Amino acid sequence: MPQPISQSISQHRPRVIIVGAGFAGIFAARELAGAVCDVLIIDRSNAHAFLPLLYQVATSAVESEHIAAPVRGIIRNMGARAANLDFCMAEVRSVDFDQRLVLAEGQDGVSLELPYDYLLLAPGSVTNTFGTPGVDEHAYSLKNLEEAVRLRNHILRSFEAAAWMADEGQRQHRLCFVVVGGGPTGVELAGAMAELMAGALTRDFPKLGLSRPCVTLLEAGDGLLPGFPESLRAYAKRKLESLGVDVRVGAVVERVTPEGAFLKDGGAHRAATVVWTAGVKGEPVAARLGLAVAPNGQVLARPTLQSAERPEVFLAGDICRAEYAGRPLPMFAPPAIQEGRHAARGILRLLGGREPQPFRYFDKGMMATIGKKAAVVRLGRFSFQGLPAWLLWLAVHLTYLIGFRNRLFVLANWAVDYFWSERCVRLISRRNPLA
Amino acid sequence: MPQPISQSISQHRPRVIIVGAGFAGIFAARELAGAVCDVLIIDRSNAHAFLPLLYQVATSAVESEHIAAPVRGIIRNMGARAANLDFCMAEVRSVDFDQRLVLAEGQDGVSLELPYDYLLLAPGSVTNTFGTPGVDEHAYSLKNLEEAVRLRNHILRSFEAAAWMADEGQRQHRLCFVVVGGGPTGVELAGAMAELMAGALTRDFPKLGLSRPCVTLLEAGDGLLPGFPESLRAYAKRKLESLGVDVRVGAVVERVTPEGAFLKDGGAHRAATVVWTAGVKGEPVAARLGLAVAPNGQVLARPTLQSAERPEVFLAGDICRAEYAGRPLPMFAPPAIQEGRHAARGILRLLGGREPQPFRYFDKGMMATIGKKAAVVRLGRFSFQGLPAWLLWLAVHLTYLIGFRNRLFVLANWAVDYFWSERCVRLISRRNPLA
Repeated sequence: MPQPISQSISQHRPRVIIVGAGFAGIFAARELAGAVCDVLIIDRSNAHAFLPLLYQVATSAVESEHIAAPVRGIIRNMGARAANLDFCMAEVRSVDFDQRLVLAEGQDGVSLELPYDYLLLAPGSVTNTFGTPGVDEHAYSLKNLEEAVRLRNHILRSFEAAAWMADEGQRQHRLCFVVVGGGPTGVELAGAMAELMAGALTRDFPKLGLSRPCVTLLEAGDGLLPGFPESLRAYAKRKLESLGVDVRVGAVVERVTPEGAFLKDGGAHRAATVVWTAGVKGEPVAARLGLAVAPNGQVLARPTLQSAERPEVFLAGDICRAEYAGRPLPMFAPPAIQEGRHAARGILRLLGGREPQPFRYFDKGMMATIGKKAAVVRLGRFSFQGLPAWLLWLAVHLTYLIGFRNRLFVLANWAVDYFWSERCVRLISRRNPLA
Repeated sequence: MPQPISQSISQHRPRVIIVGAGFAGIFAARELAGAVCDVLIIDRSNAHAFLPLLYQVATSAVESEHIAAPVRGIIRNMGARAANLDFCMAEVRSVDFDQRLVLAEGQDGVSLELPYDYLLLAPGSVTNTFGTPGVDEHAYSLKNLEEAVRLRNHILRSFEAAAWMADEGQRQHRLCFVVVGGGPTGVELAGAMAELMAGALTRDFPKLGLSRPCVTLLEAGDGLLPGFPESLRAYAKRKLESLGVDVRVGAVVERVTPEGAFLKDGGAHRAATVVWTAGVKGEPVAARLGLAVAPNGQVLARPTLQSAERPEVFLAGDICRAEYAGRPLPMFAPPAIQEGRHAARGILRLLGGREPQPFRYFDKGMMATIGKKAAVVRLGRFSFQGLPAWLLWLAVHLTYLIGFRNRLFVLANWAVDYFWSERCVRLISRRNPLA
């Protein structure tokens, strides 16, 4: 008979709770599989989502289900050694650090009190609007599967709407899209939107007589892809422009309205759709827990990734303020993976009576894709672009995508896109039920 | 420059409007491609959904996107001869039969007045609760993609909830499922639910210690699959029982509550989840149009499938009351396909100055699947069951599924299910946005 965890777990095995089934949480769990402890993963979703491909869901290239892997399936696929892992689909409300209890709301609104000896907080990040007026109300964002499907529905619906608009000005407005933020997400999304519109949607809507996509990319800084080598940044801009994207740098968005995005310098970019990819911040749950946070919501961690206040609490992923070469690490997947593994090893060391070691980031590099056969890659000290970079991007993303079937299906979708410039998932989910 | 259809269509080409992109509407459109008329397909969804596989979406076997084909993609795939076809994503509000106008609400709430010379009404059917108290509020149904995803979410969530319930009675209740209706939908759903629970979910939830699925199938009549030959009906019942389904015939549901389904004879089937597949009726839009309807909401049609009142209006699919051998045809796919084709040919005959011919149903047979390697098929006068029936079922369903890619992906999912008894699409869509 199954029992609530407070009763079923033996009192002699240490209990580890991992909050969040993103990259950090899942890679930590893999490290802890088979160890002498019971591990519970908590997430509000029942699946790990491969967020680097969200922009492909939003642009009809892959199915949302294909970049999601059910956590219980991930555990099963680790085999018999993962018998010490369990999962709980619940929303974390707070943590009682003194009693070492995670307080969460499970399904059907049930209250759960989940005891731990070691806690790994890896809840991720949310969109940061920096308080820009109108963003919450009028802009789309791209931080989870649901937002990606919402944006896909909206893009496709814009074309269905425009096809039956008598007024030329209204129609142009409905068919213009602004992406705010020139980081990897913004660059990848703008490129994929331009390709979707120039390819599948131009063929779907012959009567609209689309000549070129109307996609504008606004970046507040002096260039795209901050942190990438200069030559790659210039290449990304050129390549996006060749896809028809209007790239504007030094464009600071002051407010967003249903009319479009309006800049500090008085400029206006009229578009019915504005997508905000200009910032992320730590999941607000961390601040609610009373832990010391940086201005961007990240929790300050010791070099060992332990909480400054609570040595039995570890931090990993976007929520964790970790440094590399004197600067905070970006909120990307590679730091999250390495931090998750390192935090798990820290817990294992504590279990073995040893002190955790400081985290050292191994900088493999960074990459972003712009369009078909076009990507930028920095690999250690080497930079390259174009087809080889794109092939490497494909290989890396397929490797880190969890699930053999997901890899196969995503690869099949990419092949269709590559050979026929076709985007197959052009389905507008009509009424999405809440339940 | 694109123009609203009232201006862009030449005054000299006859205009045909097809309401509904289901089997009837799509097969009618194929018949009209390349003819000397302009054809507009209207649907509230942008995609044709392959409803015979809804139960597989609900039981995590295939992705919702893989049984949907965007209507504009279907038109494109017909090639250059389909240049006379167009699509409008809109909700039909009414028809002005005197002015020959379809009044619809397009995207962004825009009002559309769409003129026609010939109208084919094929809006399909909705769930019929027969006024049974509690069904609307407490039961799930399975008539469209959204309901299928909603049911999938709910089944998976039930197990996540049960895994953390302390109370044994509550847990049992949450893990029990009742399917009402012993027609093909109910039989296929009950079998697929039992297989899902005995396979993937038993492995996903080892701590629940599931011994057998708790699925009950209630049929009001004297046996499952009314209309099928006796030997197949008996086989279906035996086979479902061997999968662990509790089959009850002569079980008339009087009301549904959060506790379960309660019968006229006083019996009670306690279950947190009740799925209602016990009836369908014509889309209510038909009755609102003022056309003469049968008690089940079907519109009475002449033998030629023309409306009794309006010879320029044709009917096809579930909305159409057509007869075969003196009895109304069931609301299945094969009659819809044949009626759609026939109605389109009737329109073509009118365009050519000839009278439409009476519709004659060619009864190829009927089929339903029960589980892996188990189906029942009546093919003309021959009945068979088991593996050969199942293979034929697979082949027919793959053939009628629209889109090469959909066929490939569904086949891949079926192979995974066949060889590993795995159901891969175990994703609970968390917050499904309305937009």
